[in-house]
This record gives sequence, C-alpha cells and structure tokens, in this order.
Amino acid sequence: MREVAVIGIGQTKIDEHWEKSLRELASDAALAALLDSRLQKVDAIYVGNMMSGSANHQQHLGVYVADWIGMRYAEAFRLEAACSSGAASFRTAVMAVASGQVDTALAVGVEKMTDSPGNEITAELATAADADWEADQGLSFVALNALIMRRYMHEYGWKKEDFAPFAVNAHANAMHNPFARFHEPTTIEDYLKASMIADPINLMDASAIGDGAAAAVVVPLELFKSDSHKIVRVAASSAATDTIAIDHRKNPLWLKAAAESGKKAYAQAGISAADVDVFELHDAFSIMAVLSLEANGFAERGQGPRLALDGEILPTGRIPIATRGGLKARGHPVGATGMYQIVEVIQQLRGEAYGSLVEGARIGMSQNIGGSGSNIITHIFQTP
Amino acid sequence: MREVAVIGIGQTKIDEHWEKSLRELASDAALAALLDSRLQKVDAIYVGNMMSGSANHQQHLGVYVADWIGMRYAEAFRLEAACSSGAASFRTAVMAVASGQVDTALAVGVEKMTDSPGNEITAELATAADADWEADQGLSFVALNALIMRRYMHEYGWKKEDFAPFAVNAHANAMHNPFARFHEPTTIEDYLKASMIADPINLMDASAIGDGAAAAVVVPLELFKSDSHKIVRVAASSAATDTIAIDHRKNPLWLKAAAESGKKAYAQAGISAADVDVFELHDAFSIMAVLSLEANGFAERGQGPRLALDGEILPTGRIPIATRGGLKARGHPVGATGMYQIVEVIQQLRGEAYGSLVEGARIGMSQNIGGSGSNIITHIFQTP
Repeated sequence: MREVAVIGIGQTKIDEHWEKSLRELASDAALAALLDSRLQKVDAIYVGNMMSGSANHQQHLGVYVADWIGMRYAEAFRLEAACSSGAASFRTAVMAVASGQVDTALAVGVEKMTDSPGNEITAELATAADADWEADQGLSFVALNALIMRRYMHEYGWKKEDFAPFAVNAHANAMHNPFARFHEPTTIEDYLKASMIADPINLMDASAIGDGAAAAVVVPLELFKSDSHKIVRVAASSAATDTIAIDHRKNPLWLKAAAESGKKAYAQAGISAADVDVFELHDAFSIMAVLSLEANGFAERGQGPRLALDGEILPTGRIPIATRGGLKARGHPVGATGMYQIVEVIQQLRGEAYGSLVEGARIGMSQNIGGSGSNIITHIFQTP
Repeated sequence: MREVAVIGIGQTKIDEHWEKSLRELASDAALAALLDSRLQKVDAIYVGNMMSGSANHQQHLGVYVADWIGMRYAEAFRLEAACSSGAASFRTAVMAVASGQVDTALAVGVEKMTDSPGNEITAELATAADADWEADQGLSFVALNALIMRRYMHEYGWKKEDFAPFAVNAHANAMHNPFARFHEPTTIEDYLKASMIADPINLMDASAIGDGAAAAVVVPLELFKSDSHKIVRVAASSAATDTIAIDHRKNPLWLKAAAESGKKAYAQAGISAADVDVFELHDAFSIMAVLSLEANGFAERGQGPRLALDGEILPTGRIPIATRGGLKARGHPVGATGMYQIVEVIQQLRGEAYGSLVEGARIGMSQNIGGSGSNIITHIFQTP
C-alpha cells in the first residue's frame, strides 16, 4: 500500500444557498480544492452525499459533478453513509490512490437541504435510522439523541448547564471562520434560555442543517512530497459500524464503533490519543461530542463534560474540538460534513485556521458519524 | 497494489418479492456468497443501490446490511452510480483489498423496486439523468434510448427486425437460469408483435425492473490461491464517465466512456477484445447492447446488429452475451444489476453456468452502464 497525502482543499460557506444549484455548490468546493492543489485534472471523483435523490431529484452525483467541472471521462461515483457520507468519499479516495488504481482523486462532500423540492428534511434524515424499527415509530434523530442524553445525565449525574461549554466553544470559534453558517457568539445564559426541541436537547445542543460543499485532492505522498509546500500526510483511515437501531445495543452510552474506528486509526498512525493535537469530532448534538471524546480515549466514561467545563476543548486546551465551529456553529449539511471536518483539520496543520489556530498542531484527527453512532469513519493527518 | 480475487458468489431470483424486505433480499445474496467463500466474516461491506432512499424510505444501507447479517463493527457504506451502482460496489471492494486497507470485502448489489411505498419508479429512474436538462423536460430513460435507437437505425440503415436476435438470445439463455425473472422463450415473430413503449423501442427491446440482490466476496489472491477450489482472479477493474446529458455529446451513437473504460481494462489485463470468451454487457435496451459491442471492439461502428444476426452473440458464438438472460430476461433491479453481471461471468469461468455454458471460457468481462452511457464500470476476470 502506498502512502497518500492531501495537496488541496476547498469549501463553500454553509448557508441557505437558494441562488446556487447542487452542482454549483459541489463545483465551487471542487474547483477551489483543485486550484489549491495546482492540478489541472484528476483521475477520479468521489462524491459524498446523503439525500440528493429525494431532496433535489438528482442522483448519479459522481457523473453530475465530474461533468460540470470539466473532468470528462474521469472515474466518478457517489458514496452514501448517512451523515458519514463525506468521510466515506474521502476514505474511498484514499483507498483508490493507495491501491494504485488511480493517481489523483478528488473527494467532494455536498448537500443542499434548505430549498428542497422533495420531502420534509426531518423525514429525509430519518432514512438513516432503521425504517422498520425506528423511523416508522416516529423517532427522529433529535428524539433518538434526546433519549441518549437524558439517560447519560441520569447515569452520570450531569446537569443541563454542564453541556453549555460545547455550544459556547463552537460559536466562539465559528466567529473566525468565514465559511461557517453562524457568526454570533453564545453564552451559558443564552444556552440555558434556548428553545427546547426534544427535552433535554435545546436549540443550542443541536447542529443546524444547511447547504454546502467541501473537497480535498488526494495523491500518492511519494510523487508529490518534494513538490508542494502544503502537503499533509494521511496517517490513518479507518471505519467501523454498529447496529443501525440503538435499542439493539447493550449500552447506548458507549460509541463502540467510534472506539473501534479510533483504535484502528491510532494503530495505523502509530500514535495514541495523547498525541492528537486537534480533533474535529461530530457534534451533531452536544451529547455526541461528549460520547466521542470518551470513545476515543480523551475522557473517562461519563466524564466528557468535565473536559469542556475545564476549558480543555478550547483551541488552547488539551484537546481542541470544533475549532472552526463544528457541526453546531459551522453548520451540518449532512453529506458534506465529513469533508468539512477533514478540510478544517488540514487548515489547522497548515497553520491556516486564522483566529482559532491550535498553535504548533502537527497531528490532527477527524471523525464523522453516520446514523446514531452506527457508522464511524476516522482519519488522522500529520504534517510531513 | 496486490492482486485480488473472488472466492464466493451469491444471488437471489429476480422477481416481485413482496414477501421479502430490502434487508432480507440483500442478506440472502450476501450470506450465499459468504457460504460459497467459506469465510465466516469479512472486514468490509460495500452495498450498491440506486433508489432505496425514496423507493424504500431507507438509506444508510451499508450499516443496514452489515447489521442484519451479523457483521457487527465491519466497515460498511453504500455506492451509488445510478444503474452502475452494483459494479461501483465491486470496484470499491477491489480497491479496498488491493490497497491493503482491508483483507476481505463483500460487495452486494440490491434493489427493491416493485412494491415501493415511495414515488413512481420511472420518475425515480429519471434521477440518474440530468434533473435540469433532461428529467424535468419529461425525458424518461426509455425515451432517451428511443431517440438513440431511432438515430442509429437512420444512420446505419438497420430495420426494426434486425434487433430481434438480442431478445431471442437473452430469453433462450434465461430459460436455464433459475435466478432469472423470465423463463419464457421468445421468437422474431413475438418480437415484432410486442407492444411499443417509445417508438422504436418495444417491450422486447427493454429490460424489466424487479427486486433482487447479488454479491461476491473479494480477497487478496496471494492469501487464498492455494486454499480455494473456486478462486477467480480479478484481472482488471476500471471506470470512466461521460456527460450526464446526452445532448452534450458530439456523437450520441458512440459510447465514449465505454470505449475508455474498456481500453483501460484491456490494458490492465494485458489482453485485447479478441481474448474475451464471454461478455456480460448492459442490455438495458437492445440499442445499448449494440453500442456496447461496438465501443468495446467486438464490432465495427454501425455493425453491432450484424454480430447478433450472425449468431455470434449466442453461447456458442464468437462473443457470447447475456448468457444467463442479461438485463432483458434475467431482469434489471437497477442497483443490483452490476453484481449480477459479475456473478454470472464468474459462474461461466467456474463452469457453473448450467444450460448456457460457454465451453472452455477462461476470460470473462462484465460492463455496467449508469445513466445514458454516462458512467461505465468494467471488470475482467480470469481463471488462474
């Protein structure tokens, strides 16, 4: 297996992009990544997307994007792993280049959710859950996460306000990210006053949907290492799954697939959690940030909120998370999110995370979650 | 890049499976392939599917299938490339194993189209075309193919009856395939009397939708070559795309992406068209069989029907196609079709294509087409 690296990244602002089509959004990110890479073309394009078939009446996004950006005859297809679709597209690019089947690959995550001519978005999102045993019983994703958060608070004795620092950190960091959806800071007081969505999850525990796209160019490390001033090595790529329905797990408070995926990634990279300088985790809900920190070895079981309360998740802390706003404040265009996380980690390692830079960061990790902790894809990046 | 091989295959009958859920269909094929491979478990599962999000209100099929067949914690995601989704899942498995990221992978193609609680299937299929420039103008896939066939007949002077041998061959071969949807032979007279769908395409030019799943187990050749009596080497895997909308191509009668994909595959395998003993092509419409034969070097431009009229596409002919019924008579559950083609080529090479065996076949090729010739994935298989 040959080693791979990223030599270009691109992203669009996450917003309600009523003026841009799905193909324009994807292409804006893809062309920005190509420009950054200085490549004119690529052999393959892997598009991560969850719901364009129903939300935008357009499938076949591999060809759709390849065609629009002028990469005629390139290989192209789409990856879907619910909210993990973005990281699935990147992992496919990594495997394609590592295998030698292609030399240059573009991974693009895109989602357009706000002016959908199709069905209602909460129902669309629920197609990532089990249609028979969850979605058809009326369990939306916020409802599933509310059950988990309520149980977690009961089990470990945390109060509602203990989760506030996650939103406060995310919004503070998003202030510096021009691509983030929100540029308003928030406070513990705001958090406690926020509207309840599904008790105990309020508006400040939940990420916002949006329209957006992010992309990266993947190449063999050996062929480009002397060439690019911006090269970042992919030190690990791994994936693991769990049951699709939460009630089939022994312990809904332990993200077993995240632990498995993280463990494999640490082994590949030859590091441990202590070596990670920055961690873009999947804070779709604040409880998911908590469980991710625990599953990946940054906190003991039941102690995730402690890290946040102690300021250790800030850019200056022990394990900075949501450094460009996270899903909470950067926004969560579901199939694109995994690629935003990867782009942001690379920005940190390249020293380009202006305003919320983690000083001296050399090892960064991204972890994308699909479904209710059921599909977890982890990447570790390292400066050369 | 390490060499890869297939050590197990499985499939379900294509039918209206009102009694089976999407997960049961996928699992029947997956477990049959695992049983055939003698493996107990795999590292990764790649599911090819086009329309489950809207047709079955279920996405996230990687986890959905992995969970149901008991492969907990395995990597799993879904591939979508319209009607090429099946071959995309297989190509992903090939790249994953070749890269060394996983040792054992299961590729599954599945589609459940006949008792969809979602939208109308013709509209669903049209999401593989360009939403803005084709689908929203009312162009269904049969309409797009009718335009191509009409132009082809005009350009090269073929008559309607010259296309009859494709349906006759497909139906004759399907008689011997227990997994095929249709077990009725057809004749030139039947062909000429068949109901018109979109002139000049009649019912006997068009493949039938259906519910079905097919699967294969992919492993490193080196690790298993002494172990399995049924091993088949993957000699080539390649993909190429073209514009999503047909009107953006200079010549709609030349499948440029098929030619590119085929050329890359021949180069990888170190063979030419003359070496191919059996070719499972994508006869979604008889005109697509004609254009595939031409693009891949089996017939001169404009001369595809000649091969069929001369009997060269029969199991005893120069280039046997649709040997187990093809899309026409085996059936076309869109996201599963690419895997059926692969399974059937392997059956031929293992000498298990009872009733329509291509005697002495050692090199077989499968080619899956997504959209109107816009996404073409080719595989070449070889006995050791």
